[in-house]
Amino acid sequence: MFRKRHPEPGAAPGSMVIPPGALPTRLRVMDYDAARLDELEVSTVRELARFRSSRSVTWIDVQGLGNPSMLEELAAMFSIHRLALADVANVPQRPKVEPYDDNVLIITRMIRMNHPPTLNVEQLSILLGPGHVITFQEEYGDVLDSVRSHLRMGGTIRHSGADYLAYSILDAVVDGYYPVLETIGDYFETVEDEVVTRPSTDALCRIHFLRRELLKLRRSIWPQRDAINSLIRDELPLISNSVQVFIRDCHDHAVQIAEVVESYRELTASLMEVYLSSVSNRLNEIMKLLTVIATVFIPLTFIVGVYGMNFDYMPELHYRWAYPIVWLIVLVIGSGLIFKFWRWGWLSDGSRIGSPRFESRPRR
Amino acid sequence: MFRKRHPEPGAAPGSMVIPPGALPTRLRVMDYDAARLDELEVSTVRELARFRSSRSVTWIDVQGLGNPSMLEELAAMFSIHRLALADVANVPQRPKVEPYDDNVLIITRMIRMNHPPTLNVEQLSILLGPGHVITFQEEYGDVLDSVRSHLRMGGTIRHSGADYLAYSILDAVVDGYYPVLETIGDYFETVEDEVVTRPSTDALCRIHFLRRELLKLRRSIWPQRDAINSLIRDELPLISNSVQVFIRDCHDHAVQIAEVVESYRELTASLMEVYLSSVSNRLNEIMKLLTVIATVFIPLTFIVGVYGMNFDYMPELHYRWAYPIVWLIVLVIGSGLIFKFWRWGWLSDGSRIGSPRFESRPRR
Amino acid sequence: MFRKRHPEPGAAPGSMVIPPGALPTRLRVMDYDAARLDELEVSTVRELARFRSSRSVTWIDVQGLGNPSMLEELAAMFSIHRLALADVANVPQRPKVEPYDDNVLIITRMIRMNHPPTLNVEQLSILLGPGHVITFQEEYGDVLDSVRSHLRMGGTIRHSGADYLAYSILDAVVDGYYPVLETIGDYFETVEDEVVTRPSTDALCRIHFLRRELLKLRRSIWPQRDAINSLIRDELPLISNSVQVFIRDCHDHAVQIAEVVESYRELTASLMEVYLSSVSNRLNEIMKLLTVIATVFIPLTFIVGVYGMNFDYMPELHYRWAYPIVWLIVLVIGSGLIFKFWRWGWLSDGSRIGSPRFESRPRR
Amino acid sequence: MFRKRHPEPGAAPGSMVIPPGALPTRLRVMDYDAARLDELEVSTVRELARFRSSRSVTWIDVQGLGNPSMLEELAAMFSIHRLALADVANVPQRPKVEPYDDNVLIITRMIRMNHPPTLNVEQLSILLGPGHVITFQEEYGDVLDSVRSHLRMGGTIRHSGADYLAYSILDAVVDGYYPVLETIGDYFETVEDEVVTRPSTDALCRIHFLRRELLKLRRSIWPQRDAINSLIRDELPLISNSVQVFIRDCHDHAVQIAEVVESYRELTASLMEVYLSSVSNRLNEIMKLLTVIATVFIPLTFIVGVYGMNFDYMPELHYRWAYPIVWLIVLVIGSGLIFKFWRWGWLSDGSRIGSPRFESRPRR
Amino acid sequence: MFRKRHPEPGAAPGSMVIPPGALPTRLRVMDYDAARLDELEVSTVRELARFRSSRSVTWIDVQGLGNPSMLEELAAMFSIHRLALADVANVPQRPKVEPYDDNVLIITRMIRMNHPPTLNVEQLSILLGPGHVITFQEEYGDVLDSVRSHLRMGGTIRHSGADYLAYSILDAVVDGYYPVLETIGDYFETVEDEVVTRPSTDALCRIHFLRRELLKLRRSIWPQRDAINSLIRDELPLISNSVQVFIRDCHDHAVQIAEVVESYRELTASLMEVYLSSVSNRLNEIMKLLTVIATVFIPLTFIVGVYGMNFDYMPELHYRWAYPIVWLIVLVIGSGLIFKFWRWGWLSDGSRIGSPRFESRPRR
Repeated sequence: MFRKRHPEPGAAPGSMVIPPGALPTRLRVMDYDAARLDELEVSTVRELARFRSSRSVTWIDVQGLGNPSMLEELAAMFSIHRLALADVANVPQRPKVEPYDDNVLIITRMIRMNHPPTLNVEQLSILLGPGHVITFQEEYGDVLDSVRSHLRMGGTIRHSGADYLAYSILDAVVDGYYPVLETIGDYFETVEDEVVTRPSTDALCRIHFLRRELLKLRRSIWPQRDAINSLIRDELPLISNSVQVFIRDCHDHAVQIAEVVESYRELTASLMEVYLSSVSNRLNEIMKLLTVIATVFIPLTFIVGVYGMNFDYMPELHYRWAYPIVWLIVLVIGSGLIFKFWRWGWLSDGSRIGSPRFESRPRR
Repeated sequence: MFRKRHPEPGAAPGSMVIPPGALPTRLRVMDYDAARLDELEVSTVRELARFRSSRSVTWIDVQGLGNPSMLEELAAMFSIHRLALADVANVPQRPKVEPYDDNVLIITRMIRMNHPPTLNVEQLSILLGPGHVITFQEEYGDVLDSVRSHLRMGGTIRHSGADYLAYSILDAVVDGYYPVLETIGDYFETVEDEVVTRPSTDALCRIHFLRRELLKLRRSIWPQRDAINSLIRDELPLISNSVQVFIRDCHDHAVQIAEVVESYRELTASLMEVYLSSVSNRLNEIMKLLTVIATVFIPLTFIVGVYGMNFDYMPELHYRWAYPIVWLIVLVIGSGLIFKFWRWGWLSDGSRIGSPRFESRPRR
Repeated sequence: MFRKRHPEPGAAPGSMVIPPGALPTRLRVMDYDAARLDELEVSTVRELARFRSSRSVTWIDVQGLGNPSMLEELAAMFSIHRLALADVANVPQRPKVEPYDDNVLIITRMIRMNHPPTLNVEQLSILLGPGHVITFQEEYGDVLDSVRSHLRMGGTIRHSGADYLAYSILDAVVDGYYPVLETIGDYFETVEDEVVTRPSTDALCRIHFLRRELLKLRRSIWPQRDAINSLIRDELPLISNSVQVFIRDCHDHAVQIAEVVESYRELTASLMEVYLSSVSNRLNEIMKLLTVIATVFIPLTFIVGVYGMNFDYMPELHYRWAYPIVWLIVLVIGSGLIFKFWRWGWLSDGSRIGSPRFESRPRR
Repeated sequence: MFRKRHPEPGAAPGSMVIPPGALPTRLRVMDYDAARLDELEVSTVRELARFRSSRSVTWIDVQGLGNPSMLEELAAMFSIHRLALADVANVPQRPKVEPYDDNVLIITRMIRMNHPPTLNVEQLSILLGPGHVITFQEEYGDVLDSVRSHLRMGGTIRHSGADYLAYSILDAVVDGYYPVLETIGDYFETVEDEVVTRPSTDALCRIHFLRRELLKLRRSIWPQRDAINSLIRDELPLISNSVQVFIRDCHDHAVQIAEVVESYRELTASLMEVYLSSVSNRLNEIMKLLTVIATVFIPLTFIVGVYGMNFDYMPELHYRWAYPIVWLIVLVIGSGLIFKFWRWGWLSDGSRIGSPRFESRPRR
Repeated sequence: MFRKRHPEPGAAPGSMVIPPGALPTRLRVMDYDAARLDELEVSTVRELARFRSSRSVTWIDVQGLGNPSMLEELAAMFSIHRLALADVANVPQRPKVEPYDDNVLIITRMIRMNHPPTLNVEQLSILLGPGHVITFQEEYGDVLDSVRSHLRMGGTIRHSGADYLAYSILDAVVDGYYPVLETIGDYFETVEDEVVTRPSTDALCRIHFLRRELLKLRRSIWPQRDAINSLIRDELPLISNSVQVFIRDCHDHAVQIAEVVESYRELTASLMEVYLSSVSNRLNEIMKLLTVIATVFIPLTFIVGVYGMNFDYMPELHYRWAYPIVWLIVLVIGSGLIFKFWRWGWLSDGSRIGSPRFESRPRR
């Protein structure tokens, strides 16, 4: 679950650790002002030099972390601190906001659903500098297509600065949690349904799986919430006041998501208890059946055993009506016991379950 | 439970997302000062222009969020921030207080009971501006009729400003939680009664349902409490000192409600344990019965089995008193075992339950 | 548990809600200085006017809240804020300290034991003004007799101001929790004893009852502790420095009580687990008995069943020593199994319980 | 557990409540400077007058609280506040630091092991005044012998002031927790061992006992930690800067002790779950045995029952090889079932337990 | 677990307590500047005098604490406070940062895996003075070889001051937690796998063991995190601003480790519940088997018992087709019951477990 994700002990502080299978680095650029938008894909870092000092806003989208030399060139060009570069490359770091002299690094966690549906957690690092935003991610796909299409369509984002772009990216990352929560909500209800009606080992595994995934989600959203909060609190010079209002809104969403995750965690814990109770209930039902059968037939078997004895002198054996009388006794005892169990409610099926409402019945 | 309630990922920040089935927007106005009260329902936003600069207090009550264009006109007229409008429309948001330049947005959660009784949670947004209060809600009914009737009857509210009106609305929302708590309390006692006397799968579902609903309630009241607290702490210019005292009172009520919810949550958790214990207790009773029956009859069946054997040379078989002696042995063993079980208290019914009191019995 | 205790939704803020069965209001006055003490009972509020401006200290003891008009007259005479009056009348409010311009309202919870012993929780509101203290309570009895007798006997209290009187009343309320804790402690030990030695459904109910009452107690003492703390922190002008020291002492007691309540809550949670484990243990004992009986007799019954078969050619049946040999086999198998169970320790009684000590036995 | 330990409700604030069996008060004095050390035991408070103004450091060790008049004389002589005296006498108070005008009262909890080993918790009150330290304790023995012997041996303590003496006493009290923790650690491991290998009701009682004692310990060490912390934070004039460093060290120890107590509490909670699981496991083992026996023999008993029937026309009865064939069937079915159970692993003993290590086995 | 690790009660504050088996002290020195690096091992403290005032950076690596006199000489030479020396020698102390006049003491916990793999926790004390770093450890091996090799290779560390060296050591200690977490993660998955598929007492012990070790880990990392945080917050003069950035990075790692530990703790608690549920599930399976067998055969045995009776007048016995009819009845009842159980799903094996995904099935 949390394996293989740490800097090698012994690595010099601030050195990048690129895993063997890392994807080759691709550089996509969107450069725009209110009037125009240039989209291009470059193959060398040198081509980016002209964007450094331009007055337009530049978004450099770095996908794949397989070429450390390119990352180092980029760091040199945009004066990225050695530690910032290490945080960007040695994924996953904890979501955080780290202000440096010339820029600020925002580390976030993007969440998507895989196919088949399991959680895909990926680090997206946003470096906000004067007039440019650089994003770094490990894999090629992301949740930022909405930002790209807003840029292409024009609108507020094209009239605003790099800080608004950084906000938009952050907002897209946070909004990406909502559909995941929905999927989890559906799954939760499926499991809930299963637990109550047919508790099985399978359901148990599902609950445990749900807990693990919710824990993963929680470990993503809580530090992210704190990171966004520190963006608001620290009053960074690179972020203008008007964008602060938007970031506050984004923070509210992160808080809401964190609360929903906590709610699901709590409900899942409750579900585990429901499961345990259901299993015990089942056991009771099983034991009731066994007890009914044994209680009815064991005494009867004893009675018929008595008259299977071979003593020479057993007067009943020669009595004409003895056999029907034994049957009568057997039937009376048997039906008496069954009546008793019926009165105790042991013979009714305990599984009639409606959907509960706030109905209070008259108390006895 | 928490489904279908998020802004579409990819929507531009601050854009409204109106769900398909949203009710058409209705605008009701109450305009008053100490001397007079005008109530009217308008069909276009333009008709509201004259209230903007009047010296009287105006309450614009927006019910139904189906006409985004009307909402936008309204926002333009009363200088409502783009994000405030989005928060109002994209329900549900987290309860919060968001101060803007010209006004302050208070997002609250109204709670009512549906018929049949389940929790109905709805966002009520209160926008307090200079000389006017605008409330937004998704559905047509609400808990504000008491405020309207106080306005019609006259009294303190008619002599006070818009801040007192906003407070009155907030207070009505908070007071609306009390009857819901009462219903939940009744339901809780019904379930408690059931769990102790007749634990069934049904009771288990009820406990889980109670937990869910209490969690929902908690997610409403806690942020609301914090929001009201920030109203007190932030010393907003739109709220006068004399109204602050009232808001403090309202905060006390919110705290009390939150505490009662926490108490119920804790008691419900305890109830789950009681349930689990009850089920185990039941199992013990069942197993005691089975064990009594089996322990008494299995040895007896063995004894009568012995004399059902067909060996040629079994001297007892020909002894005259053998048969009555076997019966005697059977009766002695059987009644001995039953006496033993009676001494162990296994034959008494374990279900005599009185209502507990603080009685300490002499310790042995 | 928490029912019927809220202001009617729709009531105007600050209006009193007097329940139908409220007791008629009685007014008892103690007016004193170092030299003299007057005790009287008045029937109209007007008679209190002369105490308002006297230099002596006056304690007006309002018992029963059934006459709202008297309360309102009193409020007018001693300039009690509308909301303070509502807090006094609409019981129960959360314990709190609310400073107003001329006086300070301290809302506390008095705890006594009913007969038969259940918790009696009642709000006592203390209004401290310049030179007077007014206490409000719902029922006629209270825990303040010790304060009255100290007043009559003279001593520090007669030489001190109204703030010391208010402190004495507060201290009497807090000290009233101690005997309740003692009763609960005795009850707890009774239940603990019962759970370990004879777990029954009855014990389960007692544990749940204990939890509920402890929760009630907790909901009383925690806010009270906070209220007393805010008395210390807020440095109110009506309370002199020398009395502050005493209030700090009172706060320490409240903290101690809160801690004891928390301890009992935790021990009660532990007791529930002990109960559950005891029940499971019992089940094991029951099942061991059943298994011993069944394991011993079922194979034997099979053996004797074999020789009950009626085949024509069963050579053993005609062998002279067959019957004794079968008995021998039965005895060998039976005693072998019983020896085996004895070796496993299944036949010893598991219930020898001493009082535990910190004895560590040699580890194997 | 917490019984009989509160001031009588109704007692005037600040009055001493001496329980009937309190030990008579003994006064031991150690008066020293770098050059000399006088040890004496006095019988009247008057004899202490000369130490009040001496320039040497005086430690007055008050053991036994049975003579309230002596305590009051002492209070008058060393200007001890009325409430401080009450806190000293009305044990137990919560550990705290209470600064007064002329001195500071430090209330601590001394912990020792009784014989037989149960926790002995006793209040030790340290009153630090200018040039003197007065300690009060209920019983005669204590954990301060190490301080006395350091005083006699000379060294740092003899060259330092009263503040260093107070620190030394405090340090001895805190260090006294370590051997208690060790005893509890040994006990914990004994119980742990017992729970895993032979779960019994006895072990259950031990776990509950451990919880109670740990709770007692916790209620002693946490407020003590806070009290020491407030000594550091409040910068009292009576405590010099060089002694502050030592008190910080003492605080670190208190924090460490509190953490160890928390760890044991958590492990004990885990142990309770292990116990519950063990009991369930045992039940499984028992039921497996029962099921194996019943499943093997019940069908066989049916088969032999069939040929015990007395029908006239049962052709098998007269077939020569019928009897051996029945035996063959019985053996085949019986050994088939036993083989099945062996394959399921039901016949192996589940109790082979080694000491666990971090070994991860290849996953399937 | 926490045994034998405290200063002797009665020891004078600040005195060293060296356990009997402590290893003899070895002194290794690395003295360097950007140009050169000297490595030597000295046998007396006197030889270190020349490094005290040199302008190069000196790392004195003290391994083994068995020679208290050497430690005291060292303390005298480098002006180490008496309490600092006691903290270094009386292991284990709580991780903390203690600033003194001339230097700052950082107490950390190094974590390694033993062979066979159990946790090895050891205190590493870092004393940072002007131009020198002294590290103290109890045993000879450590996790600092990476720091030594960076020193030998040259690079940033050789151009930086003593503060950067102290940071590098701290960073190596923190990074040493990652491989331990990995081992624990592998172990956790092994146990998880075992719990779900084959719950045994063995698995129970493993979970409890995991909890203990995680608790140990937690007690190491949490105070370490706080200690590093106080390094950042306290702005010590010995640590330059450029190194602060690196320490912040180290703090982030400590926070991440603490979070992973918490996650594992939570998952382990969940695993315990899964285990308990699995055991209950197993019991259900066992009881189902028993119940099926008993329910099918007990009634049949009764039937054949009936016709084993020896009454003279039992007409069925002489009826020709009676025997086949009894067989028919037996088969009908038996197969009817088995069909019933099959319909209830009791005969299917409950153990088919796939790896769960977020699949929500259509709800019924």
